[in-house]
Amino acid sequence: MNDSKSNHHVGVIGLGAMGLGVARSLLRAGYSTHAFDLRADVMQQFVAEGGIGAASPAELGRACDVVVLLVVNAEQSEAALFGADGAAPTLRPGSVVIASATVPPEYPVRLGRRLRERQVWMLDAPVSGGAAKAAAGEMTMMTSGPAEAYAACEDVLSAIAQRIYRLGDEHGLGSKVKIVNQLLAGVHIAAAAEAMALGLREGVDPERLYEVIINSAGNSWMFENRVPHILAGDFRPLSAVDIFVKDLGLVLDTARASKFPLPLSAAAHQMFMMASTAGYAREDDAAVVKIFPGVRLPAAQA
Amino acid sequence: MNDSKSNHHVGVIGLGAMGLGVARSLLRAGYSTHAFDLRADVMQQFVAEGGIGAASPAELGRACDVVVLLVVNAEQSEAALFGADGAAPTLRPGSVVIASATVPPEYPVRLGRRLRERQVWMLDAPVSGGAAKAAAGEMTMMTSGPAEAYAACEDVLSAIAQRIYRLGDEHGLGSKVKIVNQLLAGVHIAAAAEAMALGLREGVDPERLYEVIINSAGNSWMFENRVPHILAGDFRPLSAVDIFVKDLGLVLDTARASKFPLPLSAAAHQMFMMASTAGYAREDDAAVVKIFPGVRLPAAQA
Repeated sequence: MNDSKSNHHVGVIGLGAMGLGVARSLLRAGYSTHAFDLRADVMQQFVAEGGIGAASPAELGRACDVVVLLVVNAEQSEAALFGADGAAPTLRPGSVVIASATVPPEYPVRLGRRLRERQVWMLDAPVSGGAAKAAAGEMTMMTSGPAEAYAACEDVLSAIAQRIYRLGDEHGLGSKVKIVNQLLAGVHIAAAAEAMALGLREGVDPERLYEVIINSAGNSWMFENRVPHILAGDFRPLSAVDIFVKDLGLVLDTARASKFPLPLSAAAHQMFMMASTAGYAREDDAAVVKIFPGVRLPAAQA
Repeated sequence: MNDSKSNHHVGVIGLGAMGLGVARSLLRAGYSTHAFDLRADVMQQFVAEGGIGAASPAELGRACDVVVLLVVNAEQSEAALFGADGAAPTLRPGSVVIASATVPPEYPVRLGRRLRERQVWMLDAPVSGGAAKAAAGEMTMMTSGPAEAYAACEDVLSAIAQRIYRLGDEHGLGSKVKIVNQLLAGVHIAAAAEAMALGLREGVDPERLYEVIINSAGNSWMFENRVPHILAGDFRPLSAVDIFVKDLGLVLDTARASKFPLPLSAAAHQMFMMASTAGYAREDDAAVVKIFPGVRLPAAQA
């Protein structure tokens, strides 16, 4: 099994929180795993773990049948595939791009069409679950695309994700579901911050408050995951404030295109922008709690 | 065990969604269970199940050592205890009132003081978990009060709740934690509606969207619990829109008293008021989704 997989060359473009986990999952599954990232330090680390460093997306594309694109947004996706030394011109006919950046839902529709002109398949395949799930090969993937694209990468998908939702043949459906997920994730992080801030303002012990809420109807995946950062006073970024400035921006742009109102998303977006411009842009997204005046947050532990 | 419990007379004032479940849990545990509610039909049903109907809170107070107050708000709590035929004058010294309505946190502080003047103990003890948990004796309770009050009703608490959080000696702490829970619950219901509305607007299959989200980082207790009502087109009230007009109003009043800003709670409150005044006041709170224009909601199943 691993022998046949070592003959299977798979590439990952973007070794961020999610991409590095995916690349390690592929290595662990026995694939010859290529990677490209602009940052030399993370590339060196990955090569030390047994990965194959590519000097450019073009070099990576030449070597691989399956490419997972885990960059931050549509601009970076565009650069990695069609920019200078991009991968699109070097990919062989029949290969497949798993496009996993969070992007406007119309982007994968156009991207799929352009790759098809080169006889390259594509899956619209955003991911969810955070860095820990990515490292364990247990992400959730929200995918759509033609059957041929799935057939060309089924084994790779099951090596990196626990749940793979197939949402239809059309590109864009995966990204639409991801956009709705980000709407909820962003509002829930901001709501967790607002709730903890009110609790502190009212003199409630924040540790006890957390314990009660995670066992009550007020719980959310994000409350449970992010409030421990507030309690520990630890705002080192797992996912930064500016990621939600971007993602809630995408949510609002998507809705605005059809003049659709999103009152909570709009309010949450304002909160993340307040946090970003107040100086917390690169802190963990839980730092949105710092916009609330008149509360003393738990101190960082020594 | 049940023999000794049948000599223990416990009362429930308010047989709504939560109160009826509590009263049935007490019956099941073997207590002689008294109840009072203004609605004759629900009283008849409870008596048919083996409960003891009281003609007034005063009559109930005369018979019981422990009284669970599960009415809707502070006004009803006040009427049940201190109104005409209220229970406060008839309660024996040493008995205890478990005050479980959702109320402004300063109300249980005053109430505890007034009951203490009559040598009656009180617990500030709001509940969470919904009607199903109440019926199963598995609610979460957010409690505070003096040790003597707990001692006077420990067995009753464990018959009706799975988790009993003791948040301190002071009345008001239980209600503050409940207020924070309601902030999150209300925002999460409104966010679930906003997310499903955007998904429908974008042409995503709502059943698949639900399935993906409950396995992704966008999930919340309320999303998982309320979106099935939207998918089924079933807005028969388990908890009505107007409950969150009231509860988010309490959240905002609490914060306003110290000039504390709550941007998401304020936006969600507006959404529930839009739904209420548009004609959905007594529908299930998931009907807040009906405020969104330009989407076709799933039809009610036959």
